[in-house]
Amino acid sequence: MFDFKYFTPTKVVFGKNTESQVAELIQEFGGTKILIHYGGGSVVRSGLLQRVTDCLDAAGIAYVTLGGAVPNPHLSLVYEGIELCKKEGVDFLLAVGGGSAIDSAKAIGYGVANPDFDVWELYDYKKQAKGCLPLGVILTIAATGSEMSDSSVITKEEGLVKRGYSSDYSRAKFAIMNPELTMTLPDYQTACGCTDIMMHTMERYFTNGGNMDLTDALAEGLLRTVKDNAVILRDDPSNYDARAEVMWAGSLAHNGLTGCGNDGGDWMTHKLEHELGGLYDVAHGAGLAAIWGTWARYVMADCLPRFKKFAINVMGVADSGTDEEIAIAGIEAMEDFYRSINMPTNLRELGVEPTEEELVEMAHKCAVGVGGEMGSAKVLNEQDMLNIYRASM
Amino acid sequence: MFDFKYFTPTKVVFGKNTESQVAELIQEFGGTKILIHYGGGSVVRSGLLQRVTDCLDAAGIAYVTLGGAVPNPHLSLVYEGIELCKKEGVDFLLAVGGGSAIDSAKAIGYGVANPDFDVWELYDYKKQAKGCLPLGVILTIAATGSEMSDSSVITKEEGLVKRGYSSDYSRAKFAIMNPELTMTLPDYQTACGCTDIMMHTMERYFTNGGNMDLTDALAEGLLRTVKDNAVILRDDPSNYDARAEVMWAGSLAHNGLTGCGNDGGDWMTHKLEHELGGLYDVAHGAGLAAIWGTWARYVMADCLPRFKKFAINVMGVADSGTDEEIAIAGIEAMEDFYRSINMPTNLRELGVEPTEEELVEMAHKCAVGVGGEMGSAKVLNEQDMLNIYRASM
Repeated sequence: MFDFKYFTPTKVVFGKNTESQVAELIQEFGGTKILIHYGGGSVVRSGLLQRVTDCLDAAGIAYVTLGGAVPNPHLSLVYEGIELCKKEGVDFLLAVGGGSAIDSAKAIGYGVANPDFDVWELYDYKKQAKGCLPLGVILTIAATGSEMSDSSVITKEEGLVKRGYSSDYSRAKFAIMNPELTMTLPDYQTACGCTDIMMHTMERYFTNGGNMDLTDALAEGLLRTVKDNAVILRDDPSNYDARAEVMWAGSLAHNGLTGCGNDGGDWMTHKLEHELGGLYDVAHGAGLAAIWGTWARYVMADCLPRFKKFAINVMGVADSGTDEEIAIAGIEAMEDFYRSINMPTNLRELGVEPTEEELVEMAHKCAVGVGGEMGSAKVLNEQDMLNIYRASM
Repeated sequence: MFDFKYFTPTKVVFGKNTESQVAELIQEFGGTKILIHYGGGSVVRSGLLQRVTDCLDAAGIAYVTLGGAVPNPHLSLVYEGIELCKKEGVDFLLAVGGGSAIDSAKAIGYGVANPDFDVWELYDYKKQAKGCLPLGVILTIAATGSEMSDSSVITKEEGLVKRGYSSDYSRAKFAIMNPELTMTLPDYQTACGCTDIMMHTMERYFTNGGNMDLTDALAEGLLRTVKDNAVILRDDPSNYDARAEVMWAGSLAHNGLTGCGNDGGDWMTHKLEHELGGLYDVAHGAGLAAIWGTWARYVMADCLPRFKKFAINVMGVADSGTDEEIAIAGIEAMEDFYRSINMPTNLRELGVEPTEEELVEMAHKCAVGVGGEMGSAKVLNEQDMLNIYRASM
């Protein structure tokens, strides 16, 4: 078992109409001039943005707004947000949306709090942050877990480079989670979110470094819950309880809970998907689903006990046959599940057909991005990455 | 499903030799003059207190010490600590020990931060706290979960009244958890701790108000883990990994995680035990074990679906027979487990034999303490409490 740190200071306010508490939460954490950062028009069309600004107006809290955060949020918008914050004297960020708005807001917060260097240098492994503007979240998509995590992912348009940066400074002060706000999501996005949530836990689960039975028990319980509720939501998207199960699972899947006592996880499915996301702007969850099965078969032999345990405790595979047979049955059951919620299990189903040249380029960028090689289930080098990309076609 | 708040700001530093980080953690949270509060002599004899003061000396952090916290910590020591803090200008509390030292420190912190009334008025339901001195913890006993919880329990010697008070103000800033520090515990105390940890989760599990499948899955995984590791520790008290599993489970069992989405739980086993603890100074965990089986049989019919689920998912009872048969088999299996780790399953085995007059007195004090009646698995009034005390002899 590995030593660990666990720090989840975010105050979660979970349930119906909780967005009405936004002003008092901002005041509790000292915000006086707010940047409300959101994504596309749905936050406007649904009336949520209006309800939020009404709350702030009623409480006499000043704010400016910045929309336009997109999936795989862009660095150019981050720069725009930083300038706006400086110009307006913003001292608190409020992200209204999903991972795109939250990650973009985190990057803006880093930029304002670290004025002596370009914020991209954090994501390019050249600098460490010394702070971040305080951040609150109103969550509208259950997926990335960014509302309780220390991480953010930004895409630099030049060269389509997608990179992550993590520090405790960026953990949100509060997260308002009203499952009703996720009900208008397209079914495809709901399924992508469920996939992302499961993958955050699975990345931590498939390791060769360290073991904590309690962490595994929590992870397996979380995976079973999301799997069951993803199917419920496929058939009944307005099911409040299922929305709530998935939403809360999304936060717990990425706040650190499901990795305590091990080496931090594998994360290569994410890294492989990041290059896809940089190049094609595909939905993150769908990209993960499209890669995972190929990755799993490629690394399975090097992490067999955990693939077996996953098969039995998460996918309900019977404990009979060889370890390899059980492990393979678990991977197949996971792929069946993905297909059942209309997620892809290869690049073709994802709707992208990279040329051999592009596969080589993605593998190279991925290898550079991880510093040469990476992985815990199995350490992958550039050739391994290329092999997986090719096999996932 | 019920709305909920979740707030666990405590920075956990978990693993071997983590107590060596105490000075930097105190500085991170702004402490300049420390009260080190501990319990009996074991913290002194083991050399832990010396190692802690060496760290503080090396960092130039001033401190005073106050030992003497006992199980069911006494109000008189709390008063002594409050006076000491005021006299010495203490701005940060460091509890070194288990629940007794932590709860006593929380009460001292309330007393210092709320100088306009007697601190007992918090525990006597007459006042609400407006703050608490910041608190850090070096945990040496896995049991109460007070290192991450918002709660504390204090006993007023006059009339032997044991009462709890909860507020987020008292959540520790940091908790240092080194499983090695728990290895010198007597086997009985280790078993008591495992019981207390499981009971914190079971109190939240047996409810009739609200349901969240994810919470149940996490709770069941935690219960299975503690149950398995309690048996490992019975046979091999120096097993580091088992110590670690139980220690981390102790924090997660009482920081709120296992109650999200339901009504907060039943808590009557705790309330019934509190009166025992007030009158007899028995070990809290043993007192809970001695009461639980009788309570469970008394309320089972009113909370049958959850007793059935508990039997199958936690105790491994086969899903065959009537719901009542499965539920009873689960209760019996839990009692068998308690006996297997040398915990009592009735008052006689606990070593106390209250007179009928004392039973009546306990039931009366318990009813007054909960404001007349309480419970979620089944609402219990004073007569119910007396019936359970009588049946638990």
